[in-house]
Amino acid sequence: MTESAPRHNEPQIIRTIAELRAAIAAFRRAGADSGVGFVPTMGYLHEGHASLIRKSAADNGLTLLSIFVNPIQFGPNEDLDKYPRDEARDLKVAAASGASIVFLPSAAEMYPAKRVTTVTVNEVSDSLCGASRPGHFDGVATVVAKLFNIVQPDRAYFGMKDAQQVAVIARMVQDLNIPVEVVPCPILREEDGLALSSRNVYLDAKARSEASVLSRALSRTEEWIEEGATASELISRLSREIASSDIADIDYVDLLTYPELTRPEEGKPLAGLDADVLVAVAVRFGQTRLIDNKLLNPAKAGAILCSAK
Amino acid sequence: MTESAPRHNEPQIIRTIAELRAAIAAFRRAGADSGVGFVPTMGYLHEGHASLIRKSAADNGLTLLSIFVNPIQFGPNEDLDKYPRDEARDLKVAAASGASIVFLPSAAEMYPAKRVTTVTVNEVSDSLCGASRPGHFDGVATVVAKLFNIVQPDRAYFGMKDAQQVAVIARMVQDLNIPVEVVPCPILREEDGLALSSRNVYLDAKARSEASVLSRALSRTEEWIEEGATASELISRLSREIASSDIADIDYVDLLTYPELTRPEEGKPLAGLDADVLVAVAVRFGQTRLIDNKLLNPAKAGAILCSAK
Repeated sequence: MTESAPRHNEPQIIRTIAELRAAIAAFRRAGADSGVGFVPTMGYLHEGHASLIRKSAADNGLTLLSIFVNPIQFGPNEDLDKYPRDEARDLKVAAASGASIVFLPSAAEMYPAKRVTTVTVNEVSDSLCGASRPGHFDGVATVVAKLFNIVQPDRAYFGMKDAQQVAVIARMVQDLNIPVEVVPCPILREEDGLALSSRNVYLDAKARSEASVLSRALSRTEEWIEEGATASELISRLSREIASSDIADIDYVDLLTYPELTRPEEGKPLAGLDADVLVAVAVRFGQTRLIDNKLLNPAKAGAILCSAK
Repeated sequence: MTESAPRHNEPQIIRTIAELRAAIAAFRRAGADSGVGFVPTMGYLHEGHASLIRKSAADNGLTLLSIFVNPIQFGPNEDLDKYPRDEARDLKVAAASGASIVFLPSAAEMYPAKRVTTVTVNEVSDSLCGASRPGHFDGVATVVAKLFNIVQPDRAYFGMKDAQQVAVIARMVQDLNIPVEVVPCPILREEDGLALSSRNVYLDAKARSEASVLSRALSRTEEWIEEGATASELISRLSREIASSDIADIDYVDLLTYPELTRPEEGKPLAGLDADVLVAVAVRFGQTRLIDNKLLNPAKAGAILCSAK
């Protein structure tokens, strides 16, 4: 026997649903009541993903990370084929962050036959990215429903950079009585404020430098609310601030209640509104579409980290 | 202490999701590996339902019967309000058949908020009752997904009188990776052949007597296939036979592969077709719409009791 130290942090790599179910059943049978935490991702992990894994590892006896670039949530003209992938690097991040199992299914494992079943979450899916990317949230809801049925986690961790995705999934869980706790986690940012995203790797030097205009614009939200802005005034100011970058091509700038994603009453200063509201932007820099957001309650001072139910 | 014998067969009555989950968790924790069987119904139980409960009780340590007249699977002009209900009688049938728990949720318990999430099973839902009753199978798939998430059964039992419903649910289970075994069970019939149905109670004496034309017509299917009928010829003969009753108002008579519910190649004698096919009819007798069907493999002798995957 050699005296190499045991490698506690080396996660088990699983590529089939049957093996994954067996591994989770074995953990459950062992009688640990500490729970199964689940972090579903599309890989190309960054520090934002790592923060979800660490949070899950702190809360649960077993943390399962899935890496699956889900084809059905990409539109025909979107970036499915060039979506960044780096399995070797992802496995290092998973190990360093405390994942016990990494689930890496193929598309054929997840969609072996022609899929005819779709989970649709109306209303919450209709605005923002749902309006810009038709069918996107059907694809998200359907794959997350599948993954929840495969993993049967106690808790699932999602980053609030995709705030609408969190709202869609939380609503699906509520409406379909899925026995899982959805845990929203705060956005992580670069030093200049750019929200971490796997898609940031697409940005050239000029776009990377200009992209920080999104978080800079969002950071002025509270100031404008204090100055008496209505919803449409706030949207105009945000749009103007973002348009100060000559390469920023705005997809949407919007303000909606959260997590219902309905439009607040127009024409009144936001400052009096005692409700969680999401200020959300989607902006193209060249070929790369970035999203960012801020969740806050105008009637109360300060932004809310995350409040999805 | 009185000496009354323990009433083994008295099922526990539960009306809330939280209590139901607690009762099932207690059963699971007790370590029985004999499984949880689930029989979802809309109540007004007949011998067909009783056969599902008995089958589940034979297969599983705990059998859960749900009784819920699901509003979202009824169309605006359908019989939701007058759908027959008799809780006291249902509880006797449940007890006599071996149910351990009867789950009787209110509509507010199942749909506490405006529901925005829908499970849709395309293609399999498009023909037969799906064509006659738009939205019906969305309502069925959505409530069954909810019930599966609430109960988390090992096996779920469905009667093949609703053969398309079985195909829709089996396909949803497959596509969404729901960890449950769907067990299709044979149609039960009255002495004159009428398929048992809660809706038979609507029939007046004349309609009740005429309604047996459905099973009589279906029973001639194999004879017509032997005589060389193509699919469209078989449909014509069945329709003519059913129309021999002057009060029979045909909604549909059709023949489709099972469980895919696709149309077989036209113009060829069915006798050479080595595939499971469903011969299905929906016919109104007065205000009452009845359905019946036969599942068979034309290339092999004899009808198949049930073969859903």
